[in-house]
Amino acid sequence: MYKVDLNSDIGESFGIYKIGDDESVIKYVTSVNIACGFHGGDPQVMNNTVKLAMENNVAIGAHPGFPDLMGFGRRNMAITADEAKTMVIYQVGALYGFVKSHGALMQHVKPHGALYNMAASDYKLARAIAEAVYSVDENLILMGLSGSEIIRAGKDVGLLTASEVFADRAYTSLGTLVPRNVDGAVIYDKNEVSQRVLDMVLHGKITAIDGTIVKINADSICVHGDTKEAKVLVSQIKQTLTDADVELVCIKEKLNSSK
Amino acid sequence: MYKVDLNSDIGESFGIYKIGDDESVIKYVTSVNIACGFHGGDPQVMNNTVKLAMENNVAIGAHPGFPDLMGFGRRNMAITADEAKTMVIYQVGALYGFVKSHGALMQHVKPHGALYNMAASDYKLARAIAEAVYSVDENLILMGLSGSEIIRAGKDVGLLTASEVFADRAYTSLGTLVPRNVDGAVIYDKNEVSQRVLDMVLHGKITAIDGTIVKINADSICVHGDTKEAKVLVSQIKQTLTDADVELVCIKEKLNSSK
Amino acid sequence: MYKVDLNSDIGESFGIYKIGDDESVIKYVTSVNIACGFHGGDPQVMNNTVKLAMENNVAIGAHPGFPDLMGFGRRNMAITADEAKTMVIYQVGALYGFVKSHGALMQHVKPHGALYNMAASDYKLARAIAEAVYSVDENLILMGLSGSEIIRAGKDVGLLTASEVFADRAYTSLGTLVPRNVDGAVIYDKNEVSQRVLDMVLHGKITAIDGTIVKINADSICVHGDTKEAKVLVSQIKQTLTDADVELVCIKEKLNSSK
Amino acid sequence: MYKVDLNSDIGESFGIYKIGDDESVIKYVTSVNIACGFHGGDPQVMNNTVKLAMENNVAIGAHPGFPDLMGFGRRNMAITADEAKTMVIYQVGALYGFVKSHGALMQHVKPHGALYNMAASDYKLARAIAEAVYSVDENLILMGLSGSEIIRAGKDVGLLTASEVFADRAYTSLGTLVPRNVDGAVIYDKNEVSQRVLDMVLHGKITAIDGTIVKINADSICVHGDTKEAKVLVSQIKQTLTDADVELVCIKEKLNSSK
Repeated sequence: MYKVDLNSDIGESFGIYKIGDDESVIKYVTSVNIACGFHGGDPQVMNNTVKLAMENNVAIGAHPGFPDLMGFGRRNMAITADEAKTMVIYQVGALYGFVKSHGALMQHVKPHGALYNMAASDYKLARAIAEAVYSVDENLILMGLSGSEIIRAGKDVGLLTASEVFADRAYTSLGTLVPRNVDGAVIYDKNEVSQRVLDMVLHGKITAIDGTIVKINADSICVHGDTKEAKVLVSQIKQTLTDADVELVCIKEKLNSSK
Repeated sequence: MYKVDLNSDIGESFGIYKIGDDESVIKYVTSVNIACGFHGGDPQVMNNTVKLAMENNVAIGAHPGFPDLMGFGRRNMAITADEAKTMVIYQVGALYGFVKSHGALMQHVKPHGALYNMAASDYKLARAIAEAVYSVDENLILMGLSGSEIIRAGKDVGLLTASEVFADRAYTSLGTLVPRNVDGAVIYDKNEVSQRVLDMVLHGKITAIDGTIVKINADSICVHGDTKEAKVLVSQIKQTLTDADVELVCIKEKLNSSK
Repeated sequence: MYKVDLNSDIGESFGIYKIGDDESVIKYVTSVNIACGFHGGDPQVMNNTVKLAMENNVAIGAHPGFPDLMGFGRRNMAITADEAKTMVIYQVGALYGFVKSHGALMQHVKPHGALYNMAASDYKLARAIAEAVYSVDENLILMGLSGSEIIRAGKDVGLLTASEVFADRAYTSLGTLVPRNVDGAVIYDKNEVSQRVLDMVLHGKITAIDGTIVKINADSICVHGDTKEAKVLVSQIKQTLTDADVELVCIKEKLNSSK
Repeated sequence: MYKVDLNSDIGESFGIYKIGDDESVIKYVTSVNIACGFHGGDPQVMNNTVKLAMENNVAIGAHPGFPDLMGFGRRNMAITADEAKTMVIYQVGALYGFVKSHGALMQHVKPHGALYNMAASDYKLARAIAEAVYSVDENLILMGLSGSEIIRAGKDVGLLTASEVFADRAYTSLGTLVPRNVDGAVIYDKNEVSQRVLDMVLHGKITAIDGTIVKINADSICVHGDTKEAKVLVSQIKQTLTDADVELVCIKEKLNSSK
């Protein structure tokens, strides 16, 4: 039986500022990536979010980002590999505090925003992140863009890795995401989204924007649930997977099943 | 044989800004309290400081403070008990990341600055801090002002506690510190400092500013080493203790010996 | 003809985080207090908010707060008078940059949150704020709690002051606000709110929570418009004032008319 | 008679953290660039630094940088032109608050660190900075790397510009600085430094690292004075200029004299 993980970024509120609809999103997923206070999240939010994850029985991951709250971690920053390494250790450790405090477990780490994107194509940066994760806990799973440098770096340092795919985003023939500002980057046709999910999960392939067929590894599908449209999309993806007898499981279980 | 710990606050630099002479101070002490990024310290500094502590074979503690870098955590902030709890979990966790990353151990937690002072007299705040520490790791030792609410709170939640004393500061007849802005608050006479150290460590007593004799528990003596005067003072304290056959040990060993 | 100002706090969003419904609130008021980047607001938000104020032809004021984004400037901080002074100069100056950039004018300064509350009862702090405002521009109007130390300090340094009142909050017999956690602190009865607005604006008096009649100066009424209930309340207050032939004008015009 | 300005970056301390030797540096220069709280500086520091500049009768400029205190504004950040514009307005305005508070004048704006470097080669970014400065006060002078895009952008929006040169740095044949990590990027030979200063100030030319002669405009020479070597260098530059009958004046006077 096929298995796949659904993940979502949560816990990105800060102080009085609320963002996302975490209580709703968490019903749809099997793993969550919790912000660690740099691009979003604060100690109160992190504490509440870890509790929320436990109550909903979803697997917990750290979601470290750039120290840029004003830019929500979405602006590239020219940090050194060493800075990336210590920033990740700091943030993973901070979330680890809440995880230990609640007697929970940490399953994985998924970089956020610009750090995620930069690490997808910059091996040196990806390697620093992977080493940070491994040094804190070698049993953590490193999640990142399927087929990218972060997956390669994770394997190189000896971590289990989770290849993340996007159901409604177009891919290039190299297996990278088509940038959002390009025509056709986002796929709105529901049937097409369903077909692409099945192609990736069942057949390990995706049709690139130029029509070529590209191999792709799909351990986890990234979803959002903070808008009406996003919820409709997630519900549809879940239905599609269920109809195809694909079991939704957390990353750890997915990876174990693959072995 | 009598034993006592000498502790110092280190790792309080931030980015390009250097403060303290950590490489020098660390030679004098048996335990260090490492800033966790709120009042001072950043990921690079924390990483380097944990390495420095390991190289010098001193016990490592977290030194959480208020989120007030501009005020160096020295300004009182009216946070709730719940906010205090999650701020401490966050910072202890963050340092824990570096400790795990280097295969080290965390021995204790000592609040910083205004958080330390407020928790000395506010049981509710002290209790929140103690619960935070216990929830992350019940084997951590909570260090705070000898005879204060933080020690009481630590014991109440089931933590081992380390009572901290000051060699060159005057005490009131209630066992609290005489505020720095009061005449006679700081003791400059070297012989008197030596005598007070021995009174506290060997006899568990101190002469208050009004002449009364007060009982005091001395598990650890706070020292600084970033100025010439501070270094002279530390050297003298060490000499005094050695001459009196008092062994300098980390807190954990001191507390074990007391049992 | 009687005149009064209606003011509201706006521009408190930060980065990706949105708070308040500024576009809607601004339709109801004659003056706005714009956050300056410490408790809320950022350069992009401030720029957009100044533009919004100009488009809606409302008078612009600076709304400086504590450097505590995580606590939204609502937590008391033990800053010195000198720190208060320079924090206010900094924030007023920052907003002044946007005001000059758009060829607008700055009418007033109103402290935010905990800074507002502390300055209401602490003359030394209030004086520091007043001196800061005067030093940047002696033509700025200082707005604060009616009858409080900030009004006294403003007058003492030579500033015009705007006494702010609250339509739906109970007052003590000393003319201070009944804290929100006390029963009866917030007035929900619409007729009572209308009556109190008229008592304050037309007759310069308010019935305190203990039944005594207290003199009160009402230059400006603080309103919110970010919830449905808030909008209903503002609409009602405006209707009540219009029915009583009270003209809604910005603070500067209100103060000029009083002379 | 030839004239030139000497400028230095000051006011970059933050909270308890001290950096630079501003009291000493300021004796050597005619203009200072004061940090505005993003990459360094805080309200207390800015207030004290403006006072220091007035006492020493040097011209005051704003020194805005990236919102990256941890990286001291030296890490490239991928901000939009619009973000750059509002960040500069905010910081210039904040310093303007202190300048107005002390009855001083602001002469110029010089971007800091990574913002300076990025704006030297990115016209769109440079233009946004220039527009920000112009919008706040069209009489401000924009200082930046001689021959770079920031000078071009400044002129394009109608600002007076100050071309900055470096006495001890090698230039490429394109008139850009040789990066510090290249051999020969820093010139240590004192006679050579003196010769280069005279070449630039008197003859408007510099010998590039490849031996070609490049035209260069030298309105202001950037100097530091926080180390013994730096002070020796500044003293030597001043002596060289004095011996050649070059008058040291602030930028405004230099630019007026050129007309």
